[in-house]
Amino acid sequence: MSDAAAAVDLDFGESGRIPAVAQDADSGEILMLAYVTPEAVERTRETGRAHYYSRSREELWEKGATSGHVQHVEEILVDCDGDALVYQVDQEGGACHTGYESCFYRTIDGETVGEQVFDPDAVYE
Amino acid sequence: MSDAAAAVDLDFGESGRIPAVAQDADSGEILMLAYVTPEAVERTRETGRAHYYSRSREELWEKGATSGHVQHVEEILVDCDGDALVYQVDQEGGACHTGYESCFYRTIDGETVGEQVFDPDAVYE
Repeated sequence: MSDAAAAVDLDFGESGRIPAVAQDADSGEILMLAYVTPEAVERTRETGRAHYYSRSREELWEKGATSGHVQHVEEILVDCDGDALVYQVDQEGGACHTGYESCFYRTIDGETVGEQVFDPDAVYE
Repeated sequence: MSDAAAAVDLDFGESGRIPAVAQDADSGEILMLAYVTPEAVERTRETGRAHYYSRSREELWEKGATSGHVQHVEEILVDCDGDALVYQVDQEGGACHTGYESCFYRTIDGETVGEQVFDPDAVYE
């Protein structure tokens, strides 16, 4: 993670951003999906902590900057087309603002399958 | 997977599509990321096989329709915002058209970490 320049060409397309999937480096659980710009990838590589780009707030953000639930990035994988990333991370606390470990805590039928790991009211005041 | 109507509201936004991450249901490996429309999700639920929407070809496609490398969908997970999916799948052959098991077979530094599981020249004529 020392070299800030990526060796693999990334294709950020017209929107200027691509999806990044955060995956627990140990368990393989998919924690969340967010979007990254070139700047977000660069900051992630420089700091070793996951950064994303908020489409609604139109700004770079560091995961966990408010909650303390930072993601330590062990590896970044790139797909064949260079237009999607996987962040393999060591997640502090939980990834989801709802208190679940993963944002993907429900099936499409509405069944809860994820584990709640913190109380969101205690973390986000 | 019997009910074709999703119980969780999905937010397809202005583009009319959301990303879906295919994950190996057994190993947890992330295999690929593609996009889905409401129709793609519906076809996936009806058939139990992963369908996506091709942005370049602007059409619904079934993974493996050409290669035989279909994805049997065991579960569909939805994220907290309803704007991203995980398809937990049993993958026939390999997910990537390059012959690798996963499209995420490289690190951002260009190191190959994935496993090649088929010869693409023999599959795609």
